[in-house]
Amino acid sequence: MARVGKLEPLRWRNGVLEAVDSTVLPSRLVYIRMRSVEQVCDAIRSMKVRGAPLIGVVGAYGLVLAARKIRTKNRDQASRELRKLADVLIQTRPTGANLRWAVERVYKASSGARTVEELEGELRREADSILREELEAAHRIGSYGAPLIDDDDTVLTHCNAGTLATAGYGTALAVVRAAVEQGKRVSVVATETRPLLQGSRLTAFELSREKIPVKVICDSAAAQLMARGIVDKVVVGADRILRTGHVTNKIGTLPIALAAKFYGVPFYVAAPISTVDLETDHSQVVIEERDPDEVLYIGRRRLAPRNVGALNPAFDITPPDLVTGIITDRGVVGQPLEENLRSKFG
Amino acid sequence: MARVGKLEPLRWRNGVLEAVDSTVLPSRLVYIRMRSVEQVCDAIRSMKVRGAPLIGVVGAYGLVLAARKIRTKNRDQASRELRKLADVLIQTRPTGANLRWAVERVYKASSGARTVEELEGELRREADSILREELEAAHRIGSYGAPLIDDDDTVLTHCNAGTLATAGYGTALAVVRAAVEQGKRVSVVATETRPLLQGSRLTAFELSREKIPVKVICDSAAAQLMARGIVDKVVVGADRILRTGHVTNKIGTLPIALAAKFYGVPFYVAAPISTVDLETDHSQVVIEERDPDEVLYIGRRRLAPRNVGALNPAFDITPPDLVTGIITDRGVVGQPLEENLRSKFG
Repeated sequence: MARVGKLEPLRWRNGVLEAVDSTVLPSRLVYIRMRSVEQVCDAIRSMKVRGAPLIGVVGAYGLVLAARKIRTKNRDQASRELRKLADVLIQTRPTGANLRWAVERVYKASSGARTVEELEGELRREADSILREELEAAHRIGSYGAPLIDDDDTVLTHCNAGTLATAGYGTALAVVRAAVEQGKRVSVVATETRPLLQGSRLTAFELSREKIPVKVICDSAAAQLMARGIVDKVVVGADRILRTGHVTNKIGTLPIALAAKFYGVPFYVAAPISTVDLETDHSQVVIEERDPDEVLYIGRRRLAPRNVGALNPAFDITPPDLVTGIITDRGVVGQPLEENLRSKFG
Repeated sequence: MARVGKLEPLRWRNGVLEAVDSTVLPSRLVYIRMRSVEQVCDAIRSMKVRGAPLIGVVGAYGLVLAARKIRTKNRDQASRELRKLADVLIQTRPTGANLRWAVERVYKASSGARTVEELEGELRREADSILREELEAAHRIGSYGAPLIDDDDTVLTHCNAGTLATAGYGTALAVVRAAVEQGKRVSVVATETRPLLQGSRLTAFELSREKIPVKVICDSAAAQLMARGIVDKVVVGADRILRTGHVTNKIGTLPIALAAKFYGVPFYVAAPISTVDLETDHSQVVIEERDPDEVLYIGRRRLAPRNVGALNPAFDITPPDLVTGIITDRGVVGQPLEENLRSKFG
């Protein structure tokens, strides 16, 4: 297992965007180096970079790199070219809210550039702000969420909503980290998260490095653990939170929420407000359908017979009545979610 | 992929018990050959042979093989030795009901043997009866279940409750097969069934051989498919059904039942009455906890970091109010399950 000091999921060095390649963890800790917007798009599509908040920041820097592609000296023409590249970036992960939010924010900042030459600098300043703010947001999520966790709690989490999904510190795992920093003993149950195993690979990796006790389970075992009273709280991240309180997150979140409701286990969603999308209706959310081979293979090993296909929706939508509360960087939003989201962020 | 004619999961040939090794499917179709009760125990523990009804039949023949170990000529001493071996057999899968039922039935038949020499023959006759009856039961389950399936239905099933889990024809898949034999167009969604992937390996293998359309999904995607209206019925098998209607089955059945309830999808359990246990209370059911490495590895590939462990409950218990009906070889048992199970089988 790779061993390093403080884990930095993302960094900008000498005009190159570097990010941890999450696909080769935990066996190796490798940074991919991105010098062009195309390389950023590839990294997102291949899920080398993943996690809604992290993808937002990566997308922001992606637009900075996009500015370098612009050859025209005409300012209006440059805006049009940048707009197109922004749309390409956004489409690499149609389900996540932060990517669109971050790319649009950086795109808007481009209006501060009077000349094409000034573009990259303006975009860069905005991307840096986003990175800094997301890191601060993660710590605030931790502060707001930690009081919800009790001493000796076992917290179940799904996928990876940790350092490796954010600019650092995490969202769901920020809550766990902050509770541990307060001196509480917290154990984590990490669902392995098929098909790409972000739970067993990334969450287990992050937490074990920090000596926070963690056990992996099959995704389908969460309900049984709740039935046996082993899980005290569920905390997950989110790819998109709608004004109605519907939560789009990694496939497998919904069945955990259903089980938590049935067995009376509090179910929290931890996410920065950049994840909140007040405009889209839940019937309009595009659920990304990914390559069936993610389900049919593990590594190079084929699991199912050759002539059998798979369905591979990458996300699901948890309805608001299954959610106990949303832990944001501006505080915890409780039920009724729609009303409280509106009054807080509307 | 292995290709053969009619798939025979189990056969007795020249005093040797042969069964399909389910751990190497779908890449190879291999029969393991068992000549001793110890080999039968190993095959069950390693899950080379799996599926509650099939394990019952294998256990029955296991006791036939056990009779060969008995060296005493004293009839009472022989009974005591046989009793011990019966208990060892039963303990190889503490969760399943059929194994205990079948082994006890064969053990009881031993009383028909006046001498030690007659033992094996008596046991063998009873084991043969069980095999024949289980095959007939599977076909009756199909007959009773098929009317519940409509033309153009998409049926979701979990794990493998097919030919490879029974003496042949299946339980949940018997219902699908019988519906198809009636001329209905039925598509199957097979959950892959972590950790041992019986869905993608065995269910997909069986159905694709018979040209019944099948798609594999991650276990955690079942709820999202129901939310999207893609699943018309759920049909699963059972390892044990209690008098209260609680259903013990492969880990991951419970979250599917919860989702089916939430989204109004009928949830059926298909099982022979040898699976019904009228005596045990659901709090007394032993949930087998299997080797964590089943979760931490796929093949030889380690998924999680070396220093991280796993929890691996092999079964879960679905409460009766989530079950629409139980399809048995004596008819369909509807709600209220406890009352109807009692009046039918009590």
